[in-house]
Amino acid sequence: MTTKLRAAIVGSTGYGGVELIRLLLAHPNVEITSVISSSSAGAPIADGYPHLNQILTDRLDAVDVELIRSKADVVFLATPHGVSTELSPKLLDAGLKVIDISGDFRLQSGDVYETWYKHKPADPEYLKRAVYGLCEVFGEEVRGKDFISNPGCYPTATLLGLAPLAATGWIDPKSIIADAKSGVSGAGRGLSLLVHYSEINENFLAYKVNKHQHTPEIEQALSRLAGEEVVMTFTTHLVPMTRGILSTIYVNLKSPRSEDDIRELYRQYYEGRKFVRIRDKGKYPATKEVWGSNYCDIGLSLDSRTGRLTIVSVIDNVVKGAAGQAVQNLNLMMGWDEATGLAFTPVYP
Amino acid sequence: MTTKLRAAIVGSTGYGGVELIRLLLAHPNVEITSVISSSSAGAPIADGYPHLNQILTDRLDAVDVELIRSKADVVFLATPHGVSTELSPKLLDAGLKVIDISGDFRLQSGDVYETWYKHKPADPEYLKRAVYGLCEVFGEEVRGKDFISNPGCYPTATLLGLAPLAATGWIDPKSIIADAKSGVSGAGRGLSLLVHYSEINENFLAYKVNKHQHTPEIEQALSRLAGEEVVMTFTTHLVPMTRGILSTIYVNLKSPRSEDDIRELYRQYYEGRKFVRIRDKGKYPATKEVWGSNYCDIGLSLDSRTGRLTIVSVIDNVVKGAAGQAVQNLNLMMGWDEATGLAFTPVYP
Amino acid sequence: MTTKLRAAIVGSTGYGGVELIRLLLAHPNVEITSVISSSSAGAPIADGYPHLNQILTDRLDAVDVELIRSKADVVFLATPHGVSTELSPKLLDAGLKVIDISGDFRLQSGDVYETWYKHKPADPEYLKRAVYGLCEVFGEEVRGKDFISNPGCYPTATLLGLAPLAATGWIDPKSIIADAKSGVSGAGRGLSLLVHYSEINENFLAYKVNKHQHTPEIEQALSRLAGEEVVMTFTTHLVPMTRGILSTIYVNLKSPRSEDDIRELYRQYYEGRKFVRIRDKGKYPATKEVWGSNYCDIGLSLDSRTGRLTIVSVIDNVVKGAAGQAVQNLNLMMGWDEATGLAFTPVYP
Amino acid sequence: MTTKLRAAIVGSTGYGGVELIRLLLAHPNVEITSVISSSSAGAPIADGYPHLNQILTDRLDAVDVELIRSKADVVFLATPHGVSTELSPKLLDAGLKVIDISGDFRLQSGDVYETWYKHKPADPEYLKRAVYGLCEVFGEEVRGKDFISNPGCYPTATLLGLAPLAATGWIDPKSIIADAKSGVSGAGRGLSLLVHYSEINENFLAYKVNKHQHTPEIEQALSRLAGEEVVMTFTTHLVPMTRGILSTIYVNLKSPRSEDDIRELYRQYYEGRKFVRIRDKGKYPATKEVWGSNYCDIGLSLDSRTGRLTIVSVIDNVVKGAAGQAVQNLNLMMGWDEATGLAFTPVYP
Repeated sequence: MTTKLRAAIVGSTGYGGVELIRLLLAHPNVEITSVISSSSAGAPIADGYPHLNQILTDRLDAVDVELIRSKADVVFLATPHGVSTELSPKLLDAGLKVIDISGDFRLQSGDVYETWYKHKPADPEYLKRAVYGLCEVFGEEVRGKDFISNPGCYPTATLLGLAPLAATGWIDPKSIIADAKSGVSGAGRGLSLLVHYSEINENFLAYKVNKHQHTPEIEQALSRLAGEEVVMTFTTHLVPMTRGILSTIYVNLKSPRSEDDIRELYRQYYEGRKFVRIRDKGKYPATKEVWGSNYCDIGLSLDSRTGRLTIVSVIDNVVKGAAGQAVQNLNLMMGWDEATGLAFTPVYP
Repeated sequence: MTTKLRAAIVGSTGYGGVELIRLLLAHPNVEITSVISSSSAGAPIADGYPHLNQILTDRLDAVDVELIRSKADVVFLATPHGVSTELSPKLLDAGLKVIDISGDFRLQSGDVYETWYKHKPADPEYLKRAVYGLCEVFGEEVRGKDFISNPGCYPTATLLGLAPLAATGWIDPKSIIADAKSGVSGAGRGLSLLVHYSEINENFLAYKVNKHQHTPEIEQALSRLAGEEVVMTFTTHLVPMTRGILSTIYVNLKSPRSEDDIRELYRQYYEGRKFVRIRDKGKYPATKEVWGSNYCDIGLSLDSRTGRLTIVSVIDNVVKGAAGQAVQNLNLMMGWDEATGLAFTPVYP
Repeated sequence: MTTKLRAAIVGSTGYGGVELIRLLLAHPNVEITSVISSSSAGAPIADGYPHLNQILTDRLDAVDVELIRSKADVVFLATPHGVSTELSPKLLDAGLKVIDISGDFRLQSGDVYETWYKHKPADPEYLKRAVYGLCEVFGEEVRGKDFISNPGCYPTATLLGLAPLAATGWIDPKSIIADAKSGVSGAGRGLSLLVHYSEINENFLAYKVNKHQHTPEIEQALSRLAGEEVVMTFTTHLVPMTRGILSTIYVNLKSPRSEDDIRELYRQYYEGRKFVRIRDKGKYPATKEVWGSNYCDIGLSLDSRTGRLTIVSVIDNVVKGAAGQAVQNLNLMMGWDEATGLAFTPVYP
Repeated sequence: MTTKLRAAIVGSTGYGGVELIRLLLAHPNVEITSVISSSSAGAPIADGYPHLNQILTDRLDAVDVELIRSKADVVFLATPHGVSTELSPKLLDAGLKVIDISGDFRLQSGDVYETWYKHKPADPEYLKRAVYGLCEVFGEEVRGKDFISNPGCYPTATLLGLAPLAATGWIDPKSIIADAKSGVSGAGRGLSLLVHYSEINENFLAYKVNKHQHTPEIEQALSRLAGEEVVMTFTTHLVPMTRGILSTIYVNLKSPRSEDDIRELYRQYYEGRKFVRIRDKGKYPATKEVWGSNYCDIGLSLDSRTGRLTIVSVIDNVVKGAAGQAVQNLNLMMGWDEATGLAFTPVYP
C-alpha cells in the first residue's frame, strides 16, 4: 500500500502503550504519528523508556482531541479505568477509529460496571456501539467497525479456553471455575508495595479473591455463548515473572464425552485461526511457549475418575492479553489479514 | 537434658536432607551423628554443599544398617521413592526409630501405591505400622510411635486447608478441587530439563495434570476425615521460585453457612496449634509469609454469588512440607513440645 | 541469665528493622520491648508484615525518647539517612546504648559526609564517640562501648575481602577496584521505579557509578588499615534477587607473592572468627551459600599472567550487611560470645 | 528479491540454534531449509521446542554434508566446541558459505586455542580463512567472504565497549579489567548443577575466575586494535536471569582526557552503525533495555578522583552475542543492509 494508516497511542508510558509501540513499529501498514501521555507530555518518550533510544525519538503529546484528529486515523487507548469513558466518545465524534484497551466499554451493563469497577459507567449509547473484540470468537463483528473494546488479559486466556465448549451446551454452566495466574506486568507500571521487587520476588499469592473486575466480563461472554446466564468462580494469583498468564479451568460435563471428541471440537472451532494452538493429548502449554507473541495455547485433560475436564490456557498478557490483540483487532477492522505485523515467533528461552 | 538424641539422615545430599541438617543443627535435644548418601559416601558433605563449610564437617556415610544402628537412635529417610520400601523395615527391625519423608509408606493400599507411583509397594505389615504424621490433624497418633510416614508437600498444604471442613460434613465431597502451585525445589536436586534455569525462569506451567501421585494421599486422608470415600480433582503447577506451595481449594457447601462460621470452625479446630495461622476476613496468605518456617497460613473466602468456598493455604514446601514437619513429628514421638527447635520466624523479605 | 536485655528498634517497618526482629526473637539474652516507627505508630506491626502474625503481636510505638528510656536498655536505629543524626545524641544522653545501622555516624569527617550524602552531618562530638563496628577487623574497640556505628552492606563485603592485605602493605593502594553487586532488598521497602518488579526482574544494571556514598566509608577504613590515604574505584550493580552481595575486588601486588601465601595470610587474619570463611584454591563463594546467615565467605585467585589478585567476597546484605552484624556488635558490646543468637546455618536452597 | 537464500542450521536444538530460527523466520531474504541436530535427527523440532508448534513443522536432519549441500546455500553452526573444527572445512570444501557461532575459529593461534579450550585446534589453513565477524569493528572484512567466525557473547559486549579507546592509544593497555556478568542462557541447554533452577535462582556467583576461554579472544582483538600485545583481567559471573550480558570495564588513561571527549570519540567511532547506542552523561544502560534485540548500549563515567574510566556495555547474549550478530554477518557477507531482518525493538518490560 502507498499510504500508511496513522496511529495515535494514548497512555504511551504504560506497559500496554509501550508494547503497542513495539508492535506498531513492526507493522507494515501502520505509522505511529502521535504518542500521548497526560502525565509526561513534552518529554521524549525515550527518557522514560531508554530501550526506545534512537528507535522512537518522538516527544509525548498531551491529550488533545483536535491534535489527535489532525495527526491520526486510529487511536489506541491504553489508559487506566475511567479515562476512556470520557475520551472515547469525543474521539468517535471527531471521526476517529478507536480501539480501547481499558475495561471501560467491555461490560454492556453500566450497573455491573459500577459494581465491579467502582467507577461511573460510560454513556449507554457508546457502550452499545462498542464491539467486544475477542478476535477468535467474536471477530466477525469487528470487521468494518470503528469502535472496539479490547478484551482483558485474564478474560482472553480464560474465554479462549472455554469458548468451544461454552457454545456447545456440553458443560454444566454452574460448574465453571477458573484459577488464573498472571505475571506481574499485568499490574502495570504504577508503583505499589504488592509489586515491589523484594515483596513479590520468590513469592506467590492470591489477590482480589472473588472480587476481580474481570469476572463479569468472562461471565458476560460465556452467557452469550451458552445462551443462558453463567455465574462462575474466578480466582487471580500473581506469579514472580514479568509476562504470562495461565488459566486452569475446571468444568463438569453434562453427559459423558471422550477427551478426543472434546479436542476435536476445539480444533474445529479454531480452524484457520493462526493464533490459537491446541496441544496433543497429554501435553500442556507453558507460558514461556507464547512469551512475546500473540499466541494462545490450550491443553485439555479429561479425568475419568471425576468426569471433570481440566483446561489449561496460556497467553502473553501484554501481547495477546492487550497490545497484540488490539493490533489484531485493527487488522480485522481494516479488512487486513489478522496476522499482519503479528506473525513473529515466541522468544525462547 | 544431658544426653542428646542421636540422629542419622539418609539422603543427606538431597534438598530434604540438607534442610533436615539445617533444622537439626538448631535443635536443642538432637545431635546429628551420621549423614548418609548412597551416591557420595566418603566425601565431606560440604564438598557438595559449600554453605555447610565449617558448620558440618562430617564425611558422608554409606547406607549400612549396622553402622546406622551403632551411631543413631532415630533415622530420617529423605530418599527417592522405592528406597524406604526396602530400608525402613530393616531399620525398624534393628530397633531404630524411623521418620520417612518419602512417599513409600503414605498409602495404606499397596495397589493404589503401585498405580500412582509405578513402583512395587512396601510390605503390608510395615505399611500398617506406619503412622501418617500430619501433625495438626493426626498428631495424637504419633506420640510414642517408632515409625512415621511424613506427609507430602502438596498434601500438607491441601489437607491443612481442608481438614476442619472435611471433618464436619458441611461440604459436598464430590465438589473438591485443589489447584496447587509449587516452587521448583519440590522437584529436588536431580537434573532435568523441566527445572533447568533457562526453561523455568520467567515461566509458569501445569504438570502431571490429573496424574500426580499426591492425589490418592490427599483422598485417603480426606476420606478418613469425612467418613466416606472422597475422589477429587488435583492439579499441580510449577512457579518460578525456589520455595513455597500455595494450594487454592474450591468446595461446594452442602447447605448455607456464613464465612464467619467457617472461619470460627477453623480457629477452633487448630486452637493451641502454633504452626497453623488462620487469616482474618479479606486477607489471604502469600508463600513468602511462611518462607523458611514451619507455618501453614490459611485464608478463606465464601462467594455469595456461587455459594462456593475458596480456601488459600500456603507452606514452605521444604520445611512444613518436608523437613520441618519431620522434626515436628520427632518432637511428637518423643513427647517434646511440638515446636522444639522449630520456633523460628519466617525469613522476610 | 535471669534478666534479658531490653531492646528497642527504631525503623521497625523497614527491611533492616524487620530482620532485627527476626534475629532478636531468637537471641537468648535479649527481649524486644519496643518496635518503633515514625510513620505507622499505633498499628500492629503484623498489619504491614503478616509473616509476624502470632509471633510478634506488638503495636508500633512512636519515636519518643522518654518512652524508649522507660522500655529499653539498647536501641537499634534502622532508619533512613538523617534520622540518627538527630536522634542518637538524645538517646545517648538519656543513658541508652545505641547501635546505629544507618550511615550517619560512619564517616569521621562531616565534610566528607555532606559531600556524599547531601545531608547535614552529625555533631562532631558524637561522631568522635561512635565506634565503627566492623566486627572481625575493629571488633576489639567495640567491647564495653555504648555507641556503635554499624558498617554499610557494601563496605562489609568489600572490607572483609581486603582487610588482611590492606594491613600488610603488600598491595598498591592506588590499584584497588571493587565491582560490587547487590540484591534488591538493599534498596529498602520504599517504592521506586528502579525496584518495581517488572523493571528489575530479568534485568541487571549499574547505578550511581563513581557516586555511591559507601565509597568514602570503604576508603576511610582502608586508609586506616594501610596507614596511608587510599582512593579507590567502586561500582555498584543491582542483581535480580532479593538478598546477597558479591564484591569482586581487583588489586595489584607491590611485589610477587604466591596465592598460597596470600590465602594463608587471610586464614591467620581471621583465625578464631566464626563468621569469615576462606575458600580453598580454585573455589569461589556464591551469595546463596551465605543466604539468611551472618557469614562472609571469601575466595582468592592470583593471575600469573597479569600479576593481579582477584578477591570474591559474599555476604547476605540484610544479615551480615545490616541486622546480623548489628547483633554481633551488641554481643561484643556486652562481652558475650560474638555468635550468640547468630549461629544458624545459611538457608539452602 | 525473487529467490531467497537457503539456510541450514547445525545445532538447531541449542539456544543459539533456536534463536537463529526465530530471527531467520523473520528475515525477508532468507528461507530456512534444514534444521540439523546430531542428537535428535528425525524428530520434529517442535517436539523439543513446543513454542515452534505450527510455526516450524520441519523434522530435524542429521549432520550430512551432502544433504546440506543439496538443501542450503549458507550454513550456521551453533554447535559445542570441537564440532566446527571438523565440520566447517568440509562444508567450505563443498562450496557452502559458513557462519560459525562456536569458538573453534576465533583464535588465530592453535596453541592458544588448545591452552584455553583444552581441545585440538582447527586446521591452520582454515583458521587463516576465517574472518572474525565483530560487525561494528571488523565488519568491512566480512563483505563478500564465505567463512565467518562469529564472536563470543562476552567478547562482543566487552570489545564494543573498548574498541574506540583501544584504537586510539589513549589508555594504558596493562590496566584493562573487564568484570562481566551474564544471564544463565549463556550456559546453554545442557543440564548441569550450576544452572539447576534451585541452585542459581536467588544466587549470584563468579566462575572460571582468570580461566574463561573468552579471555584470549578479547585480548587478540584488543591487541590488533592497539597495535601492541594486550594482556588483561577478565572475570565472569552468573546472574539469575535468562538473557543479558553487562560488562563493567575499567581502564586507566595514559594522559588526561575529558569525559566529553571520550564520549565524542565513541559517537564518531560508531557513527552510522544502528546497533550501537552511546548513552548521555550520567546514564548507564541496563540489560533489559536491549532484551531480545541486536543492540549494544554503552555508558561512560570518568572518575576525576582516580583518573580511571568506567565503561558499562550491555547486550542480549543470545541475539547480539550469538544469533543476531550471526545474521548481521550474513547481511554483511551478502552485501545487504546490516539491519535487514534485525530492526526490531527490544522487548520491554
